[in-house]
Amino acid sequence: MEHASAPRVTVWNEYRHEKAFPAVAALYPRGIHEAIAAALRSAAGLEVGTATLDEPEHGLSAAVLESTDVLVWWGHMAHSEVSDEIVAKVRRRVLEGMGLIVLHSAHKSKIFKSLMGDTCSLRWREATDKERLWNVCPSHPISAGIGEYFELPIEEMYGEPFGIPTPDELIFISWFTGGEVFRSGATWRRGHGKIFYFRPGHETYPTFHEPTVQRIILNAVLWAAPSVRIPDVSPNVAPLEPLPADRDEASRFHVNSR
Amino acid sequence: MEHASAPRVTVWNEYRHEKAFPAVAALYPRGIHEAIAAALRSAAGLEVGTATLDEPEHGLSAAVLESTDVLVWWGHMAHSEVSDEIVAKVRRRVLEGMGLIVLHSAHKSKIFKSLMGDTCSLRWREATDKERLWNVCPSHPISAGIGEYFELPIEEMYGEPFGIPTPDELIFISWFTGGEVFRSGATWRRGHGKIFYFRPGHETYPTFHEPTVQRIILNAVLWAAPSVRIPDVSPNVAPLEPLPADRDEASRFHVNSR
Amino acid sequence: MEHASAPRVTVWNEYRHEKAFPAVAALYPRGIHEAIAAALRSAAGLEVGTATLDEPEHGLSAAVLESTDVLVWWGHMAHSEVSDEIVAKVRRRVLEGMGLIVLHSAHKSKIFKSLMGDTCSLRWREATDKERLWNVCPSHPISAGIGEYFELPIEEMYGEPFGIPTPDELIFISWFTGGEVFRSGATWRRGHGKIFYFRPGHETYPTFHEPTVQRIILNAVLWAAPSVRIPDVSPNVAPLEPLPADRDEASRFHVNSR
Amino acid sequence: MEHASAPRVTVWNEYRHEKAFPAVAALYPRGIHEAIAAALRSAAGLEVGTATLDEPEHGLSAAVLESTDVLVWWGHMAHSEVSDEIVAKVRRRVLEGMGLIVLHSAHKSKIFKSLMGDTCSLRWREATDKERLWNVCPSHPISAGIGEYFELPIEEMYGEPFGIPTPDELIFISWFTGGEVFRSGATWRRGHGKIFYFRPGHETYPTFHEPTVQRIILNAVLWAAPSVRIPDVSPNVAPLEPLPADRDEASRFHVNSR
Repeated sequence: MEHASAPRVTVWNEYRHEKAFPAVAALYPRGIHEAIAAALRSAAGLEVGTATLDEPEHGLSAAVLESTDVLVWWGHMAHSEVSDEIVAKVRRRVLEGMGLIVLHSAHKSKIFKSLMGDTCSLRWREATDKERLWNVCPSHPISAGIGEYFELPIEEMYGEPFGIPTPDELIFISWFTGGEVFRSGATWRRGHGKIFYFRPGHETYPTFHEPTVQRIILNAVLWAAPSVRIPDVSPNVAPLEPLPADRDEASRFHVNSR
Repeated sequence: MEHASAPRVTVWNEYRHEKAFPAVAALYPRGIHEAIAAALRSAAGLEVGTATLDEPEHGLSAAVLESTDVLVWWGHMAHSEVSDEIVAKVRRRVLEGMGLIVLHSAHKSKIFKSLMGDTCSLRWREATDKERLWNVCPSHPISAGIGEYFELPIEEMYGEPFGIPTPDELIFISWFTGGEVFRSGATWRRGHGKIFYFRPGHETYPTFHEPTVQRIILNAVLWAAPSVRIPDVSPNVAPLEPLPADRDEASRFHVNSR
Repeated sequence: MEHASAPRVTVWNEYRHEKAFPAVAALYPRGIHEAIAAALRSAAGLEVGTATLDEPEHGLSAAVLESTDVLVWWGHMAHSEVSDEIVAKVRRRVLEGMGLIVLHSAHKSKIFKSLMGDTCSLRWREATDKERLWNVCPSHPISAGIGEYFELPIEEMYGEPFGIPTPDELIFISWFTGGEVFRSGATWRRGHGKIFYFRPGHETYPTFHEPTVQRIILNAVLWAAPSVRIPDVSPNVAPLEPLPADRDEASRFHVNSR
Repeated sequence: MEHASAPRVTVWNEYRHEKAFPAVAALYPRGIHEAIAAALRSAAGLEVGTATLDEPEHGLSAAVLESTDVLVWWGHMAHSEVSDEIVAKVRRRVLEGMGLIVLHSAHKSKIFKSLMGDTCSLRWREATDKERLWNVCPSHPISAGIGEYFELPIEEMYGEPFGIPTPDELIFISWFTGGEVFRSGATWRRGHGKIFYFRPGHETYPTFHEPTVQRIILNAVLWAAPSVRIPDVSPNVAPLEPLPADRDEASRFHVNSR
C-alpha cells in the first residue's frame, strides 16, 4: 500500500513547562508543539496536528495514530507519566512505518528508549554554553542546504558518551564551549519506520524559533514520511520448493545417535 | 574495571518442552540448558551455571546476574511467563556489559525484543527442511574455523524478512530447502554489552548436540565476555573549558526578539 | 547547489558480448544498455543517454559526466580495458554526488572495486539455477512495491561470501536452487554519492526484459539521484573560537621533556 | 589457518620530516617509527619491526609483508612517492587478514584511500589548538581503560566533514579549542582485515611519546591481529543441491518471447 497524498504530521508535546514556568511561557506562549507545528504548517503539502500529555490518551487515540504519517515528540519532566499502553501503540505504529522525530530531552522518553533498546543516557549541563552543530553528512536530505555548520548561541549541553546503538546515519556532531562533543543528529530504521533524533531544544531557549532548526525538523519530517505501511506478522508458510520426503524418527535424529 | 579471570556463563532455558514432550526429553534428557552447559564446560577456562524459568526469580537472582559475564538464552512457548521485572534486570546487566547469546525461538523473547527495539518477527515452518548456514564473515571470532558453510539435516525453517535492526556484523545466512533465506547469525552492541543471535536450535531436533553448533556457541561466549563493567549514569557535569560569562535575559533570548 | 530538474541518467555498457555472441544479440539486439535505457525512458521525468566501452573515452567525456546525475554500469569480459583515467574521473563524480547503479558482473569492475575498497569476489556458476530474491527491506524506496520476493527462472549463480564492506542497507538476499545464498541488493554511500549494487543480469538471460528488474533499476535511479553536488576540498581553515596564545617551544614540547 | 603465536608488527614511516626539520628530529631523533616501535616492544608478546619509504621496496618486501600480522602506517609529505605496486601488495595483504593501523596524516595515504573508497578529505589547521578526545565506545578493546576522555595539549586540528564511509565502530570524537569536532578513532573491516584510523600524531608535537596514545596504538594492534588468513578467490563451483534439468533455448529465453 503506497502513500501518495500529503504527509500528515502530529506534533506531541509534554506541555508542562510552559504552564509551570513563566520564562518558558514567554518563549512558547502556545506551547512548544504549536511553535513547531506553525513552522511545519508554513510548508506546503503537510497536514499538521498536535497532541499533548494531559489530553485523553495523551492526544494519541487510535484514530489519531491511524492517520499520522510522522510523529514529532518533545518531552522532559514527565516521561514517567506517559502510559505504557500508549507507548506500546506508538511503538507498533512506528514499526509499521510511521516516522518518528525525537527532540532533545525526549532522548529519555519511553518511546525512544523502547525503540533503541539502549540506555540513551548522556552527560549534561544547563549553563551558558554555545553549541555549534557540524553537518557531517551534507548530502543527506535532512541536512541538505544547511551549510557546513550552524550555531545556537545558548543551549543546554549534552555530552558523550551517548548510550545509543550505532546510528544508521550520523548527520550532526555538536561542539560545546565547555569542552564536550555530541552526536546531535542521527537516524535509525526500526521495523518499517524511520527515526531521527535531533539534540537541540531546551525549553528555556528560543531554539524552536530558529529558522535553521525549523528547516531541519521539516526536512526530517519529509524524509521520515512512509511510502508503505506493513503490519507486523509472523506467518507460518508453506514451502516454495519441494521438501525432502518426510523421514522417520530414526533418520530425523541421526545426529543424536552418533 | 577490567575483567581478568575466567568468563562465568549462565545458560538459561525455559525448560518446559523437555518436561511436556517425550520426543524432546529423549533428545535432551536433562534439558537443553544442560546440553549446552556440558559442551561449554568441556572448554577450559569457563565457569558454567544454569537457570530455568520455573526456579525462583527464574534462576536469575541479583546474585546470579551479578556474577554472570555471559548469559545464553533459550525460550519458546512461555516467553510471556518471564516476569517483566527480571527482564528489566537482565537488560540492565547487558547494558552494563554482560554478553547475551540469544538462541533460535528466543528471537521472540522479551529480553531480545527489548534490546532490539523491533518486532523480531519472521516467517516459519516446521517441516523437513535442510538448513545450510553460509559463513559470510569467516574472519570473525564467532565463525573462525567453521569453514565455508555447515549443514543441519533437519531444522525448523525461519525466513526473511526478519524484523531486526541492521546488524553491526552479519555472520551467517541460511539457505533452506523450501526456498527461503535467513540472517542466521548476527551481532549488535547495546550499551556496553555484546549480543549474538544464532538461529538454529528447535527443540525437536538434536541441533545442540552438533559439534559445529557447540563450537559456535562457545566462540560466541568468548567473544561476548566483557572486559569492562560500566554502570548506567547520566551525570550533571561542570564545564572543562571556560564558558561565556552569564548573559542577561535580553541577550539569552535574543533570537526570539527578531 | 540543489538539483531541481529531471534526473539525467547515463547507461554504460561494455557492449562486447552482444557483438560477439549471436545468442546474446538475439536477447539484446541493440545492446544491454539500450534495453535498460528503453525501460528507464518509459518513466516520465528522466533524461536517458547511453555510453559504451568502444566509444572515444568510453563514451564518458567530461561533458557527459558533468551532465550525468546517475550512472548505470554493466561490464563483464573487458573490465581491464576500461582506462584508469576514466575510472578516476567517474570515481571523482560519484564522490561529488553522482549516483551509481552497479549491475551483475560489474561487481568486478574497476569503478566498483575502487569505491568499495574490497575484493568484491564471490563464488559463481553458470548453470540452470533458479534465483529467488527475498525483499528484506520492503519499506526501502528501491524495493517498495516489489512484494515479498520475486523469481528469475534461470540466472547465473553468485554465492557468498561476497567480498564487500558491510552495506549501509541490505535490500535483497537471493536463494539459488543449487544451495547458495547471496546479498543481491545493497547500498553504500561514498563521498556524497549513493551506490546500489544489484546482482541479476547475466548476458545470456533475458533478465533486463523482466518488468520487476526494470522497476528496481528505475527505483534505484530515483533513489540515487543527488540533491547536492559538493566538490572534494581539504581547506586550511581559521579557528572559529579564540585559541590559546602561542606558546614557546619549551611549552609546546613539554611532554617530550618529561 | 589459525594464528597462535605472538603478533608480528611492522611500523612503517615516511621518515622524511625527521631528516629535513631539526625541530622534528629533536622530538623523534630515531624517527616516528622507532618511537612507536619502542612503545610496542615494551609490551610482552609482540615482535616489532620497522620499514621506511626510502628503503628498497619501501621496506615492504614480499617477505616482510608475508610475516607481518599488523602494519602501522604514518606518512605525510610524500604519499605520492609510495609506489602503486607496493600499495597493491599491502592492500592484498590487508584483504587477506593483515591488520592496518592508520595514523594521523596517513588519512591521505594511497593505502587508506584505496581501502576506504572515499576522499578521506577533511578541514585542517596547524596552530595552538588543544585536542580533547572523547571515548564514545568505552567497552571497545581499543579504548578500554582509557577513561572518559584524554587531552593533547597541542595538536594539529582536523575537522569535519571527514570524507570516510560510515565506520563500523566509532570510538573517539575530538573537540578542538578552535571550534571543530572530528571522528578521531574509527574501525572498518575490509576483506578479512581490520583497520583502525587514529587521528593524533602531527610530526611537530610529542604525541607519540604520550603514554595514552601509545596504549591506544598497542590496544589497536592487539585488536587487529588476525586469527585467520584467507586468500582472495572467485571459485567456479558445482551445485550443492540438484539443479533443474537443463532446458532448451526456447524455455531458457521464455521471458524474452512475451
